[in-house]
Amino acid sequence: MVEKLTPMTDDFNEWYTDIIQQAQLADYSPVKGSMVIRPYGYSIWESVQSYLDKKFKNTGHQNAYFPLFIPNSFIQKEAEHVEGFSPELAMVTHAGGKELEEPLVVRPTSETIINHMFAKWIKSHRDLPMLINQWANVVRWEMRTRLFLRTSEFLWQEGHTAHASEAEATEEALRMLDIYAEFAENAAAVSVVKGIKSANERFAGATRTYSIEAMMKDMKALQAGTSHELGQNFSKAFDIQFSDEENNLKYPYQTSWGVSTRLIGMIIMAHGDDKGLNLPPKLAPYQVVIIPIIPNEESSSLVLETTQKIVNQINGEFRVHIDDRDNISPGFKFNEWELKGVPLRIEIGPRDIENNTVVFSRRDGVQGKFNVPISDITTTVSENLDDIHNKLLEASRIFREDNTKHVENYEELISKLKSEPGFVTCYWDENSEDEDKVKQETKATLRCYVLDHQETAKAVNNKKIDGKLAIFSKAY
Amino acid sequence: MVEKLTPMTDDFNEWYTDIIQQAQLADYSPVKGSMVIRPYGYSIWESVQSYLDKKFKNTGHQNAYFPLFIPNSFIQKEAEHVEGFSPELAMVTHAGGKELEEPLVVRPTSETIINHMFAKWIKSHRDLPMLINQWANVVRWEMRTRLFLRTSEFLWQEGHTAHASEAEATEEALRMLDIYAEFAENAAAVSVVKGIKSANERFAGATRTYSIEAMMKDMKALQAGTSHELGQNFSKAFDIQFSDEENNLKYPYQTSWGVSTRLIGMIIMAHGDDKGLNLPPKLAPYQVVIIPIIPNEESSSLVLETTQKIVNQINGEFRVHIDDRDNISPGFKFNEWELKGVPLRIEIGPRDIENNTVVFSRRDGVQGKFNVPISDITTTVSENLDDIHNKLLEASRIFREDNTKHVENYEELISKLKSEPGFVTCYWDENSEDEDKVKQETKATLRCYVLDHQETAKAVNNKKIDGKLAIFSKAY
Repeated sequence: MVEKLTPMTDDFNEWYTDIIQQAQLADYSPVKGSMVIRPYGYSIWESVQSYLDKKFKNTGHQNAYFPLFIPNSFIQKEAEHVEGFSPELAMVTHAGGKELEEPLVVRPTSETIINHMFAKWIKSHRDLPMLINQWANVVRWEMRTRLFLRTSEFLWQEGHTAHASEAEATEEALRMLDIYAEFAENAAAVSVVKGIKSANERFAGATRTYSIEAMMKDMKALQAGTSHELGQNFSKAFDIQFSDEENNLKYPYQTSWGVSTRLIGMIIMAHGDDKGLNLPPKLAPYQVVIIPIIPNEESSSLVLETTQKIVNQINGEFRVHIDDRDNISPGFKFNEWELKGVPLRIEIGPRDIENNTVVFSRRDGVQGKFNVPISDITTTVSENLDDIHNKLLEASRIFREDNTKHVENYEELISKLKSEPGFVTCYWDENSEDEDKVKQETKATLRCYVLDHQETAKAVNNKKIDGKLAIFSKAY
Repeated sequence: MVEKLTPMTDDFNEWYTDIIQQAQLADYSPVKGSMVIRPYGYSIWESVQSYLDKKFKNTGHQNAYFPLFIPNSFIQKEAEHVEGFSPELAMVTHAGGKELEEPLVVRPTSETIINHMFAKWIKSHRDLPMLINQWANVVRWEMRTRLFLRTSEFLWQEGHTAHASEAEATEEALRMLDIYAEFAENAAAVSVVKGIKSANERFAGATRTYSIEAMMKDMKALQAGTSHELGQNFSKAFDIQFSDEENNLKYPYQTSWGVSTRLIGMIIMAHGDDKGLNLPPKLAPYQVVIIPIIPNEESSSLVLETTQKIVNQINGEFRVHIDDRDNISPGFKFNEWELKGVPLRIEIGPRDIENNTVVFSRRDGVQGKFNVPISDITTTVSENLDDIHNKLLEASRIFREDNTKHVENYEELISKLKSEPGFVTCYWDENSEDEDKVKQETKATLRCYVLDHQETAKAVNNKKIDGKLAIFSKAY
């Protein structure tokens, strides 16, 4: 049943958790920091999976499955990797009623176990590129958790690839970043910036980390997907070698890349409003909800039959749900489906049927209620879903642009980050200490250097040097 | 590279593990008892998932995701459940660098955590039936493991449902059993017997366990899927109550049901032969492999172009792979794709192209090599895949029937089970001690009472009583 939703402007965090609970996307689990993904939330994840899985396969990747448990000694093999992940590991110490000789780590990510197997499978240049993806659960013991955004266990996909040359690995990492950006914009209707991380924010064990960054409605940044070049760090640590065409033994260059159920958090915070969720049509569990309006007993069968005919007409093409619950008023249903963010609502009552029409309303409120001839339903649904998608994407882009300020000097960077929410861009000379200082003073981090922006200019942290265009922001 | 496969008749177990490794279905992982599912094996699992997921959704089930970690106290709540699973549990005792206050169990199955959530979600008869499914990994610490059949971690789906009445729960459990049987026969091409388990073989916590049982080529039984009625055991243990239409509080009746990656083991052992895998067309990663035959440089472009044209023609309808590796002979490729069990092979050489034909061969050897006009390829592929499926299914049914013997008295039961492989049927009076005795003497277990066989007759273990038709067999 619909309870009152905390308004976004009163308390963004409360608004966020209210939506998740009331729209039944997820629920807290009895184990601290982990969550239950309920069917309505899981269905969004299934759409994400199905969209991305096709893209991965079309670019030559194959799915596989690697073990949940990793010997502790494996994690120790790559120095930076172990440093990055050690504080977050969950350890199995007992199994089958006995203490284990070596504790097993519950995978926080699978580079180590996958590269152990790659060492067995990769012998020749003919085995390359090796292009593997895995859909799996991973565990990172987090102190401060938030549903979908940061939970001890989450679902994700992790791609792992090996290539004969560094150039090919770079190309792969950027190809996958492009797929993530394309997904964000064309499926989730969220405008994103493609960037490259500073050394401070890089994945533990990577030589380069690329990311897509989105702006949420509270103007914080959300890192929505990452793609890493691993250089030869893991191939050397796990002794993966291939003989090249001249029969020389070489270490391959590698990548890894992933997106997770945090994408659902992004969708909530990029499009939602005080009425609730506002789902992008391509990922919405139901794209259309149909509500039969039955004012009296005698109109019941006509309305229900007409509703069924309409559903039969459009069900193959769109994801449609009929809400024919008879113990709940239409007004209540309208609110509930707005809360659940269904892009299009169709009402069908006896008077509409007399006129051979139905009543449409869009979740985004554009046009208010409007009548549509029954014969035009399919095309009208299709056009409106497209238009809703485009408007969501456009709004997301404009919102980010409107809330991104450029600064020309360091003092302005600090004062902007302290005084206003939003992204702040500036030219920046890569420097770990300066970056730490900004973080300490403002809680903002260097989200990324903007990938598509090649120009350099005087850095705000070092006027003697030309820096790259960087985005600073508070982030999830 | 293809190594020599141990002949099935020499050593069935060796043959089985050879196939898995050589066809690259799976590999051993560094963690004892767990496995890596390689792309070729995982692709079969993806076909299984996609087939069953549709059936689950068409019967009103929704997917969700529940946590991997379960508080140890939850497992303790249902007496039989804890007794059944305790010896197999893996425990997380440390996380985030600290010892946990309560150890967490890595889920061996999810009844306990799911029913904890059901207690929160189910309030009224309007919330019923609740029909949930989860695709997930589970961990059961096994002493003796076998790739796909029994591994410490495996992938599966687990359905969990709650119903207002016992009759509805029974109907649900049988509906899901039927879906499993339908899958086994129509997708995996394996003939199965639907049965109900004896108390000895029941799921820990169930009131009734149904299963489908298949016969492998070594004449052992394989339990391929189970569906359980849980009665009110879990709803009482987890205090799930709903108010019925008269506002009385009641405990719902529940079911759970699952199939796992062991189905891949079934497919290997039901259809394979001394040449290797023999995949059912509906689940084969590639239904057709096309091998261009290029005797000399100048025919190369003609052959490759024609091959590509043919692939474009059939690729939307079938899963097709072109093997155009240039460092490997056609003969070697034929062996490799036979090992990998691809149902249909098409060879295309310059002479075939001159005659406007291609050469077909079926993995099952029926017809040997035969020429097919290029214009008839689509229909010929389609007809042959259907025919291969039907013949596999039929062979599997006949093999089981031929290797099932009926006995009329106890001595014969014991001597048959001791002296011959295969199924032995008899009328049996449910009796746990007698069943244990058979197991001790013969290593065979009561696989199931045959569900579709209603007649009763004098029981071999108690001539005074009419028993039900039971199948005894050694099993995986």
